[in-house]
Amino acid sequence: MSNKRIKVTIWNEFRHEKHNDSVAAIYPQGMHTAIAEGLGSDCDITFATLDDAEHGLTEAVLSETDVLTWWGHGAHDEVSDEIVECVYNRVLRGMGLIVLHSGHFSKIFKKLMGTSCDLKWREADEKERIWVVKPGHPIAEGIGEYIELPQEEMYGEHFDIPEPDELVMVSWFEGGEVFRSGCCYTRGLGKIFYFRPGHETYPTYYNPQVRKVISNAVNWAAPVKADYPRYGHAVPSLEPIKEKN
Amino acid sequence: MSNKRIKVTIWNEFRHEKHNDSVAAIYPQGMHTAIAEGLGSDCDITFATLDDAEHGLTEAVLSETDVLTWWGHGAHDEVSDEIVECVYNRVLRGMGLIVLHSGHFSKIFKKLMGTSCDLKWREADEKERIWVVKPGHPIAEGIGEYIELPQEEMYGEHFDIPEPDELVMVSWFEGGEVFRSGCCYTRGLGKIFYFRPGHETYPTYYNPQVRKVISNAVNWAAPVKADYPRYGHAVPSLEPIKEKN
Amino acid sequence: MSNKRIKVTIWNEFRHEKHNDSVAAIYPQGMHTAIAEGLGSDCDITFATLDDAEHGLTEAVLSETDVLTWWGHGAHDEVSDEIVECVYNRVLRGMGLIVLHSGHFSKIFKKLMGTSCDLKWREADEKERIWVVKPGHPIAEGIGEYIELPQEEMYGEHFDIPEPDELVMVSWFEGGEVFRSGCCYTRGLGKIFYFRPGHETYPTYYNPQVRKVISNAVNWAAPVKADYPRYGHAVPSLEPIKEKN
Amino acid sequence: MSNKRIKVTIWNEFRHEKHNDSVAAIYPQGMHTAIAEGLGSDCDITFATLDDAEHGLTEAVLSETDVLTWWGHGAHDEVSDEIVECVYNRVLRGMGLIVLHSGHFSKIFKKLMGTSCDLKWREADEKERIWVVKPGHPIAEGIGEYIELPQEEMYGEHFDIPEPDELVMVSWFEGGEVFRSGCCYTRGLGKIFYFRPGHETYPTYYNPQVRKVISNAVNWAAPVKADYPRYGHAVPSLEPIKEKN
Repeated sequence: MSNKRIKVTIWNEFRHEKHNDSVAAIYPQGMHTAIAEGLGSDCDITFATLDDAEHGLTEAVLSETDVLTWWGHGAHDEVSDEIVECVYNRVLRGMGLIVLHSGHFSKIFKKLMGTSCDLKWREADEKERIWVVKPGHPIAEGIGEYIELPQEEMYGEHFDIPEPDELVMVSWFEGGEVFRSGCCYTRGLGKIFYFRPGHETYPTYYNPQVRKVISNAVNWAAPVKADYPRYGHAVPSLEPIKEKN
Repeated sequence: MSNKRIKVTIWNEFRHEKHNDSVAAIYPQGMHTAIAEGLGSDCDITFATLDDAEHGLTEAVLSETDVLTWWGHGAHDEVSDEIVECVYNRVLRGMGLIVLHSGHFSKIFKKLMGTSCDLKWREADEKERIWVVKPGHPIAEGIGEYIELPQEEMYGEHFDIPEPDELVMVSWFEGGEVFRSGCCYTRGLGKIFYFRPGHETYPTYYNPQVRKVISNAVNWAAPVKADYPRYGHAVPSLEPIKEKN
Repeated sequence: MSNKRIKVTIWNEFRHEKHNDSVAAIYPQGMHTAIAEGLGSDCDITFATLDDAEHGLTEAVLSETDVLTWWGHGAHDEVSDEIVECVYNRVLRGMGLIVLHSGHFSKIFKKLMGTSCDLKWREADEKERIWVVKPGHPIAEGIGEYIELPQEEMYGEHFDIPEPDELVMVSWFEGGEVFRSGCCYTRGLGKIFYFRPGHETYPTYYNPQVRKVISNAVNWAAPVKADYPRYGHAVPSLEPIKEKN
Repeated sequence: MSNKRIKVTIWNEFRHEKHNDSVAAIYPQGMHTAIAEGLGSDCDITFATLDDAEHGLTEAVLSETDVLTWWGHGAHDEVSDEIVECVYNRVLRGMGLIVLHSGHFSKIFKKLMGTSCDLKWREADEKERIWVVKPGHPIAEGIGEYIELPQEEMYGEHFDIPEPDELVMVSWFEGGEVFRSGCCYTRGLGKIFYFRPGHETYPTYYNPQVRKVISNAVNWAAPVKADYPRYGHAVPSLEPIKEKN
């Protein structure tokens, strides 16, 4: 672990900031910039957005990415299936993936989960309190008991995901719902973390605790040194096999 | 639970039995028939095969299926994406799915797992001993400590699947490998069980313990009574939300 | 499964009902009677209380129990360690255990969990909404999206339990907390379900949905037919072992 | 993560090395010394053994320990319950615990697991091959596909443990058994790893891959910065609670 630099690619749909004045007022440089500011000094950051060539996720960029963060919302369908396939293959080979907020409906998250990833939602300026339910987990380091966000979009259960390998946070919403807000998975060699908050009309990615969670998640999801397993025809055998009749 | 009949659809690729004499000698009526013989008298059985219209998996058949078992091997690619999508949607709505042996590489299993589902394999007539590691699980009921199969194809780790929600069985192979052979998952409302043995050139589906496992799995995977969750826009809220500035 | 009768022993501390008029007004025959009324007609019920000889949990009673439900609160320390050891051994051998509300602090639950089982609490007549987060689970059958209880004691995170094998329900509380309210575990051959609601000063165990959950849980936790595994010295070996130098 | 030194206490029963010549020949300075040699240079090491005062695990030592490794075999019963309670409380507060081989039957492991931790065993100089089944896990970093040990004691399933939070390794044994050999748990804030190999009559703790696993596990189990959660009476409430009638 120690001292290793982490190559992080921050992917942002980057449309709302251009077309919606109130979003632009909050994130004048785009949400990706605010997310980047929250990462540790041990991160080397690359930005990639939907309207870049190949969405900014060329083979060269992906092969040099340790951890990819993903924020998308209105234009999931515009992400090309070929790029999704490349991201998927990189995750199976060890690249970490941090899926943020409305990224729950991205092609890549649905493909890795194997479920619809559907949920309830409501835009009503309501209070969210994100409780830590696994306080010894590296992603919860330094967060304390909960994160309180004065206004956020509501996401409510049922959230149609596979049961998380580790459930780190659960949200309480003013309007009466709960939500599994911090969910860890492994797919192939890659670690995946879904983190709920971050609606584009609120300054959520300036919140120091939210930033700390994302920063912790990037560290947690950084790949370990591991060869991709050998699959396929396994001959000769490791042990002698008795001849049968 | 009690007394309820279970509608089981047994899907078989049903090609090896037609084109390979030694397979035909073992399963003259097709593997699906042998699998059906092992199910309990509380099951109403439908057969469906690759070469049937819509692979035998019409909307009508699927909507009347509680649990689908899946055996495929050489022709995964010939299964239409549309049918896979229908099966997928039925699983998310509660249909159980029992994936057998080489079905690990079926489109439907890979789609539900979100991984490559790759593994090591070897055809060397080797002994397999399937150990029960979760003896209180309903799928292990009546199995005892292990199932010994005198000759089987080897499947070895690493098996590229999400970590199972419940791991019921682990195989020992004569040639030196191990394999997670009985794996439980939930996707949406549907329960999924992957069960390793069943290479077409061996009489595995006549083995009483193997049959017992499949029969137990069908019972375990049968859907409970549950409405499909309501997703989407959740207004009005359940609790009053304070007006913010 | 089908048709099998389930032998349920309902254990109740049965002190509050005797010493507190408002509790007695709600549960004049004791909470155990109200819990029993909610179980299905396929259950054969035995009552056992703290002040019975051996707390009503004699070897004879335990050996004839498929599923034990446990409600205790003020007198956990008066439960004898010997009886706890007997219950523990029965769970490892397959007896189901349903731990209710303040039973989180019982000796038997702490012994099976290996943690403090501590939590936050508040008695403030507040609303609880118990959301189903695993809608296809047998324990959630027929419950719908959530259970709303107009007044309950609050239990809040962090709840110091091992991460549940399956998390079925999460509570929202009026005062701002969340709680993992329906938690499944396996210990040895035995299945364990912790279910949060049921403070003695509220008529919670008359609620039809709460009763349905407990009834479902009893069915889920009923033991499967399985021999207790053989442990210890394993000679001779199953396979020949080469002589080493 | 970066740069932090880890305070490791290596606990050894240290009896076999004194009373058995063949063990002494392999581990003349005790197994703890061999285990220590395998740890990284970022570890500050303390030794503690059964026959030390308070088994070497004084309050002062424990409070300064980030990760404790535990090897015991013949004298589990001589470990005082008071010390076990202190270790247990430290684990819940975040101390990592690495339980080695016959430590499966230690008081502390059984207390944290809540099960018997029983298993099958055989001393027959047989080959063990420990397969990595979760290759992206930090504990498997740099191990490759498997570890082969030419001679070890056999441990076989059923291993009576709670289903691991993460299963990292599974052993194949020459005599025909399998075993879940690398098992991760969380209890309270503390991380626990059980690692199977290490019978006292074999030079297992000199094996570079075995050492790498233990070193990785120490890094993985090192505590994160987290306050111990506040439990108990939670007043006032975070949100206003409506007065009920």
